[in-house]
Amino acid sequence: MLDKVYVALIHYPILKKDGTIVSTAVTNFDVHDISRSCKTYNIKKYFLVSNLPAQRKIVERVIDYWVYGHGGEFNPNRKQALEIFEMEHYLEDVIERIEEIEGEKPKIVFTSAKARKNVVTHEKLKDIIRTCKDPILILFGTGWGMPEEIREISDYDLEPIKANSEFNHLSVRAAVAITLDRLIGEN
Amino acid sequence: MLDKVYVALIHYPILKKDGTIVSTAVTNFDVHDISRSCKTYNIKKYFLVSNLPAQRKIVERVIDYWVYGHGGEFNPNRKQALEIFEMEHYLEDVIERIEEIEGEKPKIVFTSAKARKNVVTHEKLKDIIRTCKDPILILFGTGWGMPEEIREISDYDLEPIKANSEFNHLSVRAAVAITLDRLIGEN
Repeated sequence: MLDKVYVALIHYPILKKDGTIVSTAVTNFDVHDISRSCKTYNIKKYFLVSNLPAQRKIVERVIDYWVYGHGGEFNPNRKQALEIFEMEHYLEDVIERIEEIEGEKPKIVFTSAKARKNVVTHEKLKDIIRTCKDPILILFGTGWGMPEEIREISDYDLEPIKANSEFNHLSVRAAVAITLDRLIGEN
Repeated sequence: MLDKVYVALIHYPILKKDGTIVSTAVTNFDVHDISRSCKTYNIKKYFLVSNLPAQRKIVERVIDYWVYGHGGEFNPNRKQALEIFEMEHYLEDVIERIEEIEGEKPKIVFTSAKARKNVVTHEKLKDIIRTCKDPILILFGTGWGMPEEIREISDYDLEPIKANSEFNHLSVRAAVAITLDRLIGEN
């Protein structure tokens, strides 16, 4: 159902260039740009997942300024977009939080720019979202992507955007925007 | 033709909240995220338009690091994306630069989140891009959008994304990504 779609941006656990697992740095634009895209496409909540205290502190300062401080007065749209924003330590906390809100666990959608087998097309997932009774949680990675362990617990593995392009390195902010437009579009 | 599509991000002249004309601040993500989206969708060049010396200096430092410095070694994809990036002082310089490359002036596409009359749909512009012999230049605004004087010199005025959404305040980085996906898509 279109009114139970959630998005999470994963900063831990994430693959580093050398294949080891790290926590990636949060950027101001991960908070703003993705909240604004999610709000535009009627996403119920956008979760940023980071377990690092210093990174979480940066995000809290951004939220303070735009939701409670001068930013929200100057630009009320920013404040409005951030109303759907929440920060969690781990993916497990996000799943628990959705279960708390909806009374049931979400179906999880894995995304990646890498080519892989058994993916669901955007077209097919668009249909699933419209008919599925469970909440849907779409995961996006940072750094060099999410590890296999997250893909394994996911219900759907979404095909890459522009898999056949010579250059296929969209920012995660662009990937979220395009994915939401393809899956939810103008409806 | 799909091989003569150009994008420009306008930082001057731009509307401020109160309707006056200003130069907006450039962000690091205006450079990176939009270059990466443009490169993925095979845009020929991405121009950032700013007339402010201090702002131009920031952009030059970003480019230096990622194209000539350590950044390009650590992450060659960023360097590759920035190969299509150019900075110009004014929109007139962008038009001149395209004329220099293509031997003809581009058709100009205006974009805005605001509702207005006589817009072309994404579907229609997608067809035009495929059949038009002239180069195409798609303009995106920052701040509170581009002024009327730019709309007046444009050949096409593109419909807003999600005009019917209750909340319609995408970041320009998200708007560029979605627009390119709609106009160029997987082709």
